[in-house]
Amino acid sequence: AHLNQTDYSNRGMSLEDDINDTNTYYMAHNLAIIHKKPTPVQIVHVDYPKRSAAVIKEAYFKQASTTDYNGVYKGNYIDFEAKETKSKHSFPFRNIHQHQIDHMKQVIFQKGICFLIIRFSMYQETYLFPADKLFYYWDQQIRNGKKSIRYETVKKQGYIIPVRYQAKVDYLTVIEQCYMENGGTTNGR
Amino acid sequence: AHLNQTDYSNRGMSLEDDINDTNTYYMAHNLAIIHKKPTPVQIVHVDYPKRSAAVIKEAYFKQASTTDYNGVYKGNYIDFEAKETKSKHSFPFRNIHQHQIDHMKQVIFQKGICFLIIRFSMYQETYLFPADKLFYYWDQQIRNGKKSIRYETVKKQGYIIPVRYQAKVDYLTVIEQCYMENGGTTNGR
Ligand SMILES: [Mg+2]
Ligand SMILES: [Mg+2]
Repeated sequence: AHLNQTDYSNRGMSLEDDINDTNTYYMAHNLAIIHKKPTPVQIVHVDYPKRSAAVIKEAYFKQASTTDYNGVYKGNYIDFEAKETKSKHSFPFRNIHQHQIDHMKQVIFQKGICFLIIRFSMYQETYLFPADKLFYYWDQQIRNGKKSIRYETVKKQGYIIPVRYQAKVDYLTVIEQCYMENGGTTNGR
Repeated sequence: AHLNQTDYSNRGMSLEDDINDTNTYYMAHNLAIIHKKPTPVQIVHVDYPKRSAAVIKEAYFKQASTTDYNGVYKGNYIDFEAKETKSKHSFPFRNIHQHQIDHMKQVIFQKGICFLIIRFSMYQETYLFPADKLFYYWDQQIRNGKKSIRYETVKKQGYIIPVRYQAKVDYLTVIEQCYMENGGTTNGR
């Protein structure tokens, strides 16, 4: 099977496409510089044919040790993970790994702006859910065994991300509201 | 030939190793969260053997569209490229691409902290060279055709990075001096 790279790295493809388009728009208009990180790959064997490009002949997918996206907005470090769910009732922790949580905690400690972008595809609703709130529910797992956050909770404690013609997931608008209220960068972190 | 990933992605291997060690130290001590980005790879063909991990059977190296390293330090976005040269006289622009310069200009516009780490291996000296000074010499190329920066210039306009036992390339010390003088984040950008 011949597939392009995005096919592997991501199940919630349309959300990622929308975010990538949004980032392209942000970049073209000098609003923010946010990139998706390349899929980490462990390369084992490479051929170097004469007069043509090196060919990777054996490699394996590695688990990402960080989140999908990072970059800069008005000097602030931005870091987030994007997840899409088909569930109507809750956002499952499936596909979030402990080391990603660890990374997000480190980012928050360093005063970075860190969050999840969660899409409930059944409702076509996309939320910014701040990392510190995620940690609360993640850490709860140990006590109550609940491996998800209820849709109602995401709706209440998260922030709906507006859909715009060119910025399909216009998360900068929400960042402005949640993190920049004092014209600065200290709120909401 | 079986090689590990760092063998391909990098000629100045020992500088990158030193930076990676430094970043590990910074992370372990909650001083900064800086990661090297994965080498971007275009995946063409993957096998999915039963009961074992997916194997990438055909893939190609893609040119990086950004710099090697980014992350967060005290809320500030940090972004840099690391380059080692064996020249005694100058730092050559070879291996720096126009789109990386474009990226660095975008980062500076967004008020990120952006620089090169340049090692002159003959002298065992490593410098932080701010991106805005790099742009000056880069843009000069068109007029004077000079595709390098003189060693003396790097020495004068850059900042020597101290070598420490655990932080082998202790660039945070220099960032503190160059960018945080007002206890803030606006200087030197
Ligand atoms: Mg994702
Ligand atoms: Mg490099």
